[in-house]
Amino acid sequence: MYLPKGFLAGATASGIKPSGKPDLGVVSFLEPAGWAFVATTNRAAAPCVLRGRNLYSRDVLLQGLVVNSGNANCATGEQGVRDDARLAELAAGFLGAAADSVLTASTGVIGVPLPVGKIEKGIGNIKLQSELDPFAEAILTTDTRVKLSEQRLPGGARVVGVAKGSGMIHPQMATMLAYLFTDALVPQEELRRNWPAVAHDTFNQVTVDGDTSTNDMAAIFSSGLSEADGVLFWEAVREVARDLARQIAADGEGAEKLITVRVAGAYDVSDARLAARAVAGSALWKAAVHGNDPNWGRILAALGYSGARFEPERVSISLQETVIYDGGAVPFNGVALSQAMQAAEVVVEIDLRAGDGAAESWGCDLTEEYVRINAEYTT
Amino acid sequence: MYLPKGFLAGATASGIKPSGKPDLGVVSFLEPAGWAFVATTNRAAAPCVLRGRNLYSRDVLLQGLVVNSGNANCATGEQGVRDDARLAELAAGFLGAAADSVLTASTGVIGVPLPVGKIEKGIGNIKLQSELDPFAEAILTTDTRVKLSEQRLPGGARVVGVAKGSGMIHPQMATMLAYLFTDALVPQEELRRNWPAVAHDTFNQVTVDGDTSTNDMAAIFSSGLSEADGVLFWEAVREVARDLARQIAADGEGAEKLITVRVAGAYDVSDARLAARAVAGSALWKAAVHGNDPNWGRILAALGYSGARFEPERVSISLQETVIYDGGAVPFNGVALSQAMQAAEVVVEIDLRAGDGAAESWGCDLTEEYVRINAEYTT
Repeated sequence: MYLPKGFLAGATASGIKPSGKPDLGVVSFLEPAGWAFVATTNRAAAPCVLRGRNLYSRDVLLQGLVVNSGNANCATGEQGVRDDARLAELAAGFLGAAADSVLTASTGVIGVPLPVGKIEKGIGNIKLQSELDPFAEAILTTDTRVKLSEQRLPGGARVVGVAKGSGMIHPQMATMLAYLFTDALVPQEELRRNWPAVAHDTFNQVTVDGDTSTNDMAAIFSSGLSEADGVLFWEAVREVARDLARQIAADGEGAEKLITVRVAGAYDVSDARLAARAVAGSALWKAAVHGNDPNWGRILAALGYSGARFEPERVSISLQETVIYDGGAVPFNGVALSQAMQAAEVVVEIDLRAGDGAAESWGCDLTEEYVRINAEYTT
Repeated sequence: MYLPKGFLAGATASGIKPSGKPDLGVVSFLEPAGWAFVATTNRAAAPCVLRGRNLYSRDVLLQGLVVNSGNANCATGEQGVRDDARLAELAAGFLGAAADSVLTASTGVIGVPLPVGKIEKGIGNIKLQSELDPFAEAILTTDTRVKLSEQRLPGGARVVGVAKGSGMIHPQMATMLAYLFTDALVPQEELRRNWPAVAHDTFNQVTVDGDTSTNDMAAIFSSGLSEADGVLFWEAVREVARDLARQIAADGEGAEKLITVRVAGAYDVSDARLAARAVAGSALWKAAVHGNDPNWGRILAALGYSGARFEPERVSISLQETVIYDGGAVPFNGVALSQAMQAAEVVVEIDLRAGDGAAESWGCDLTEEYVRINAEYTT
């Protein structure tokens, strides 16, 4: 997938990952880019997150992005702060930009010092190009595939997104990195005003395992080289973010299926988000989906503890377009519904009949493979 | 284990469970008993929970308790409310008491009508006795063993507790039933004043899978037949509740190990509870414990999203009595620590160095077996 006008990217294998896979990616912003960003609320946030917040508060334009995978540079003390600054300097030197105009990100194992020497040696091997795929691969950890998405706007401007996900995925960004690039000319102020809401409706509605990670961020960058309609632009941004969120959920650790939960009729949007996330994140429902088991009691129980306001006697629940609960149990063909659940995507639709709030959430089934992956990660 | 003075119990297999295992238990209170109770906050709470709250608000003394397993009588509509009232009537008839003096509870699958006909036929087969074990067995669902605990007070009064747990276990009671019986003479008002705090520190600090169930309650009943010292009494109650909480966590679905998390130095008790629960409930840390992997980054990450206030540079973390983090990574022998993690109980001790708050939480490792159990439950 090609980047919009004004961006070039590249990647290399610098040796951070013992596997020898690509682990270092940079994006060069040919024009100083307006940007907006949201990051993890985790109190043990990594130096890259703290540094990104600092840049953001200073309202500077950016000239580049550098991401390493295989090492989160988190819980690495003062040395970690210095190493993160050094990562920015090395990328800035490579890109011919000021260090304070480069956003950093690290993802991978926590608590191990970042091998900056390897990055220093490796970064010169990167070839910048308009294709984003090598970068998309270099930012992965336990993901099984790259995550890319694109929307074109009338007039030629584009919105292109890339993300990584997999484990420690939950509302508040988790081990999730997501970057959207656009050449559409959008004022910095408008980017910052609208981006958090997009992130809340998309990336913050993804849950894989309930663990909120220390290194996560979702950012959007605009080179401003093309004119675009503001309304259509935000629709495109939302669609790219939503598509990446779905890809992250579908590729959750050990996942075999994407779970999509759509809630309508909630008391308000906040309740709708809570309700959708509770169902998508319920370990019991996730395990039931894995076993193709239309056990709607677990959906109702998750709604019940979600914090959303509703009366159980008024709720309706559909699974794969079959109504299974409507103020009470509805008879259904269990064998047929279990077969329908064998699809790559299992869709739960809920009407709380308590108001006008609507939201979606995405998760994945809970599998034996998730346990295997996470029982042995550092050792 | 024998009940305190003033209580008799019994159980039978009424045929609710297809396996033919015991599924119906009653406790007879020979003296009208003072009591206190806390129950699930789930919005889809079952009729038994709503009925229990109603009895509680009316401040009546109780003469009996009836529990069925194998069917939660939840999300069963108006019929469910009638069936729950009928369960109370049948037990009251058997015990020779008024229906409004009998507390009901149901646990098991959600959304299936309660087979009251089977209960009506079966209840007469129950033989009342002072041994609690048959009752303890009859309230189990996917639990692998009975959960009983006892403390004796100077002067002869006793506190005896029984519980069931297993899946859908999380703060707010989950699929947890816990009953404590005592012959110690304690005013009803004192029971009600102190019981919630005990439940918060014990049953509400157990997490198996993050799902809060629809049917759960923890209650204490006093026959008042023996004198006892108030301070020693509450220490005994707390110890029985704590012991049952640990038994519930250790027998979580698929669990091979008990995880105990002790937090000290929290800003306040509320923060300590949050921090301990977040670590005990982290899917990633639970999977790491399963794999004997001393991956402390996951502990730190869980503390970070717990909501507790602390500075990562001040925290210390010990695992099986080995310090592994103290404001930063501490070198340790990974092979030896991994071996130490093969014990039946894995203990994490955390000092947040932010205040005086302390709390414990209990959970269990996340295993492939948890997924297998929950992928096929109704089908």
